[in-house]
Amino acid sequence: MARVVQRIERAGDDVIDGLAAAGVATVHEAQGRIGLLASRMRPIYPGARIAGSAVTISAPPGDNWMVHVAIEQLRAGDVLVLAPTSPCEDGYFGDLLATSAIARGCRGLVIDAGVRDVRDLTQMGFPVWSRAIFAQGTVKATLGSVNVPVVCAGAAVDPGDVIVADDDGVCVVKRADAADVLAKARSREANEESKRKRLAAGELGLDIYDMRGKLEAMGLRYV
Amino acid sequence: MARVVQRIERAGDDVIDGLAAAGVATVHEAQGRIGLLASRMRPIYPGARIAGSAVTISAPPGDNWMVHVAIEQLRAGDVLVLAPTSPCEDGYFGDLLATSAIARGCRGLVIDAGVRDVRDLTQMGFPVWSRAIFAQGTVKATLGSVNVPVVCAGAAVDPGDVIVADDDGVCVVKRADAADVLAKARSREANEESKRKRLAAGELGLDIYDMRGKLEAMGLRYV
Amino acid sequence: MARVVQRIERAGDDVIDGLAAAGVATVHEAQGRIGLLASRMRPIYPGARIAGSAVTISAPPGDNWMVHVAIEQLRAGDVLVLAPTSPCEDGYFGDLLATSAIARGCRGLVIDAGVRDVRDLTQMGFPVWSRAIFAQGTVKATLGSVNVPVVCAGAAVDPGDVIVADDDGVCVVKRADAADVLAKARSREANEESKRKRLAAGELGLDIYDMRGKLEAMGLRYV
Amino acid sequence: MARVVQRIERAGDDVIDGLAAAGVATVHEAQGRIGLLASRMRPIYPGARIAGSAVTISAPPGDNWMVHVAIEQLRAGDVLVLAPTSPCEDGYFGDLLATSAIARGCRGLVIDAGVRDVRDLTQMGFPVWSRAIFAQGTVKATLGSVNVPVVCAGAAVDPGDVIVADDDGVCVVKRADAADVLAKARSREANEESKRKRLAAGELGLDIYDMRGKLEAMGLRYV
Amino acid sequence: MARVVQRIERAGDDVIDGLAAAGVATVHEAQGRIGLLASRMRPIYPGARIAGSAVTISAPPGDNWMVHVAIEQLRAGDVLVLAPTSPCEDGYFGDLLATSAIARGCRGLVIDAGVRDVRDLTQMGFPVWSRAIFAQGTVKATLGSVNVPVVCAGAAVDPGDVIVADDDGVCVVKRADAADVLAKARSREANEESKRKRLAAGELGLDIYDMRGKLEAMGLRYV
Amino acid sequence: MARVVQRIERAGDDVIDGLAAAGVATVHEAQGRIGLLASRMRPIYPGARIAGSAVTISAPPGDNWMVHVAIEQLRAGDVLVLAPTSPCEDGYFGDLLATSAIARGCRGLVIDAGVRDVRDLTQMGFPVWSRAIFAQGTVKATLGSVNVPVVCAGAAVDPGDVIVADDDGVCVVKRADAADVLAKARSREANEESKRKRLAAGELGLDIYDMRGKLEAMGLRYV
Repeated sequence: MARVVQRIERAGDDVIDGLAAAGVATVHEAQGRIGLLASRMRPIYPGARIAGSAVTISAPPGDNWMVHVAIEQLRAGDVLVLAPTSPCEDGYFGDLLATSAIARGCRGLVIDAGVRDVRDLTQMGFPVWSRAIFAQGTVKATLGSVNVPVVCAGAAVDPGDVIVADDDGVCVVKRADAADVLAKARSREANEESKRKRLAAGELGLDIYDMRGKLEAMGLRYV
Repeated sequence: MARVVQRIERAGDDVIDGLAAAGVATVHEAQGRIGLLASRMRPIYPGARIAGSAVTISAPPGDNWMVHVAIEQLRAGDVLVLAPTSPCEDGYFGDLLATSAIARGCRGLVIDAGVRDVRDLTQMGFPVWSRAIFAQGTVKATLGSVNVPVVCAGAAVDPGDVIVADDDGVCVVKRADAADVLAKARSREANEESKRKRLAAGELGLDIYDMRGKLEAMGLRYV
Repeated sequence: MARVVQRIERAGDDVIDGLAAAGVATVHEAQGRIGLLASRMRPIYPGARIAGSAVTISAPPGDNWMVHVAIEQLRAGDVLVLAPTSPCEDGYFGDLLATSAIARGCRGLVIDAGVRDVRDLTQMGFPVWSRAIFAQGTVKATLGSVNVPVVCAGAAVDPGDVIVADDDGVCVVKRADAADVLAKARSREANEESKRKRLAAGELGLDIYDMRGKLEAMGLRYV
Repeated sequence: MARVVQRIERAGDDVIDGLAAAGVATVHEAQGRIGLLASRMRPIYPGARIAGSAVTISAPPGDNWMVHVAIEQLRAGDVLVLAPTSPCEDGYFGDLLATSAIARGCRGLVIDAGVRDVRDLTQMGFPVWSRAIFAQGTVKATLGSVNVPVVCAGAAVDPGDVIVADDDGVCVVKRADAADVLAKARSREANEESKRKRLAAGELGLDIYDMRGKLEAMGLRYV
Repeated sequence: MARVVQRIERAGDDVIDGLAAAGVATVHEAQGRIGLLASRMRPIYPGARIAGSAVTISAPPGDNWMVHVAIEQLRAGDVLVLAPTSPCEDGYFGDLLATSAIARGCRGLVIDAGVRDVRDLTQMGFPVWSRAIFAQGTVKATLGSVNVPVVCAGAAVDPGDVIVADDDGVCVVKRADAADVLAKARSREANEESKRKRLAAGELGLDIYDMRGKLEAMGLRYV
Repeated sequence: MARVVQRIERAGDDVIDGLAAAGVATVHEAQGRIGLLASRMRPIYPGARIAGSAVTISAPPGDNWMVHVAIEQLRAGDVLVLAPTSPCEDGYFGDLLATSAIARGCRGLVIDAGVRDVRDLTQMGFPVWSRAIFAQGTVKATLGSVNVPVVCAGAAVDPGDVIVADDDGVCVVKRADAADVLAKARSREANEESKRKRLAAGELGLDIYDMRGKLEAMGLRYV
């Protein structure tokens, strides 16, 4: 069953970069409140905001062999997405693998397991979203697969899907929907900008969104 | 049952500001080691230290409608305190609501659920203590209540209680006790200062606090 | 059973400093992938990298009396290691105890419980690795022991063992193995440096480590 | 601050017994979906269904002294409710204390910590709802309080409140509301009985509750 | 986006019943060690062993409206599979819904949230695998979807997939693979039977599986 | 480093059987409140109470090869104790391995990971204490060690130590201390028996243990 899918489809660069600029919260809302990975996925340092095409890895617990295999499949602009086949927080990835991934143009790693050498990764500016920081070493003994559908931190990810990640967490956008989601995200941002000004000026959401009547109708009492 | 209590009592500004200056650990000790919220409540960025009067929100899981309602009840110096009616880590609050809250003079948010747009909130200097950072969007479909007694992260909070929050977490002080707790906190700080100097000079707590005899009497053996 | 062991063996300063420079991930690998404390042990601020001799504390839940006792046993270069006798996240340690520990030359604290005054500790540059940040105060009512073998966050620690801690977590090295582990760590680092250059230049781990044949033999299919 | 309140008000026996018969889920709904303790509170054996007046205990972590004090305050029909002052799973309670509590007419224990001797407790028919089963022993060194307001597993409990517990968990009913809640619970049960028959006969909730129109209006599409 | 897919494909009854008889562990192995739901999914009572076609529900947190919608889509032999759109442990399901589901021939419920009325469900013999037992009530205010692909407890489930559940947990088998997996499961069982006899007679796995040479070659030392 | 230690010392059969009869809570108290494994270690079925000599396994995550190796080292009366080298809940053990272990006279398994085939194991009467029930299969690719010191669920276990396990959890007794601990346990039981009778007759612990004076002296107030 272990296999490496070498050709995957990717979304367009403009779309991907647009989604990065929009950020996780906006993209998630724009696509109908779906696609978030679990909140346990946290960045190893604040401030990174990326998007890229998913190169997926299904790996056994405690075995990072397939990371080496996956790195060969990376193109510039890709994001590695690793899902262990059972819950694991071992440190599959450190500074050597990051050096190699960066050389291939990789933009970051999303891993539902552990990562290590985080001081080095921070200095290198290689962002990682992980469930744990854990130095626990791994072996290279058992096969997994690269570029197959995975469930990573509760979200289904297909290879080539767009991964958006920032301080709010990680969101996956289906490749075929990416352009449409970007359009909706931009529309949402434009709409939010005017709201932001009104709210900053002291107007209440209760009035801007015309909520008072509905709240009263549903029975909210002011006492 | 859904209701908004519009008039709440608040502690005096001087007392509130004094409690902020004392900080969570000291205030907690000063009032007899009570009032801490659970340790899962963490700040979204380091360095903030605030105190303010609690405007409380009891909200259904995944529904942030009542946040809009609560913002109208804010006065300058208040802190929003949101407790979901069942465990939830959805992102009830983001940069738009923060913009609105800041316009009302709100000093921060304490939420036993999730928050999003944390990069924006950090740049805005709006501090949040939460159980999760999670972009998951919420709906506006079901009523809750504002300014009712809640249990937030294991601590009972009444509207108007003083919330103290810093890098150590969050503590609640009963409004009626606030002035007394402040006095005790200041006394404690004065006492600690002299201890700090002696300890820094190399004196041992064993001697300063005269513990050796009691330890021996209880049976501690040095081998 | 409560006792304080006053004489413990320590590793040499050069060895300890060498292990600090190597860091947790390298040391852990160098000694055969053992000795890590659980990933829940996180630093209160980023960037610290220390090593030191363990002065161990076995303490009852919610009782920090033995910390005072342990501080007297500290020598310059030591690290305090506290394991509660049952799971606890109370704040056993704050700025006063840190002041005292620093006065004795202590390099840091590793505690499978809580810590408080983290803003002060950060400003003082006293690093702590803990399972929680929690202001919860403790009592001084029940004895424990100092410099006895403990299990801290899943790792067995004997007094005098070398504790290595950095942003990746905490690792313990048996005192008798410390010099040997340091030699292996240095050898490992030298080896990694050449690998790093080749990887940075675009060579693949698949080729550097000669993995392709073995992967094929085990049945990995490229599709 | 440590105190024992010796006189507490209790609800009437008929009301208490009626609430026991209704069970947790019904009582919780009848009082407006409030009052549940966290789901981590599980019975040590299946099948128990009790209600009783809360005799509350606020105890330090790992210290069960106040349980002895509380037992003296028990009257026939009471339920012990123990909340530690910080998170703890030690075994505060075992077969000897159960023997004593039974002799006082106690109906069970609700403890946001651990319990032990569960085989004996099961044979004695003394039900316990706890967050853990853990043999860890406790000390008798530090005071707490009996019959003061506590927050137990996320729910505010006042002494004399009615505790209802069964296989679904634990619910607290304010003493003053108990008779009213019982009336609503009985009404709810009567209403459910007719629904149950119709559902058993194959009618759909969609029809019984007349949901189809509202679902369509909100935009649910059948495809 | 909210929709109900009314026609789904199902596997054959014989295949489904065969998979039930094989059980979770065997089915999981037979299909290459994939398809398990997370270990937090536990049965409400021991001894149930079922298989059925998945009728999936994607539901908002704390809102069980879609369960009513889903029940209409049930055919005899189906299993309800509910995945909340964000983490939630509310009690979406109790004895009334079970009565209705049983009337439609439903074999059980798999829910990555809470369930209540577990004593009644046990007496009715309606098995549930859930992440929590929690009486927390839900609302009927927001739409979700029925018979769409979901990720439930970390496993991707399409409507019509075969759900196998027993005391070991829950496994999903892709509908198209079900017959093949059954064949492999039976083959595996036949093979295991002979192994079981040899092991029971005292032969060692080391010998039956011929492991000694490989262990020695890899460097295992007997001391 | 991978090794199998073939000769281990064991405690005497009478001592072991005596400790089993005393049970976990009593043994834990008798040896000074030490030796408990974490409360996450739960029995797969209620009612088992065993003691035996530990045959320890240090195994990689997701790899059960060493279980086969360990079974050869079992003597009648032994208990297998498996500690993974990093956190893991995979199902290392099922009915085939149990069949083999029973054939060697093994009394049970303590595993800080997962177990499967729990229905079969229950029917076979082979007790297991584990952190999870999880069908996840494992591989046989990487070496570990047998009969080396391990830390299992937070407790240090040496091969040949006595493992005591029942419904309260698991406790380890150092082999050299076993006879002494048994004597203390029996003394403790004798003492408890008289206490139990007095408590059952309605005497209070406050009086039996003469606590009233000390409570008053420490400041407990009755109000």
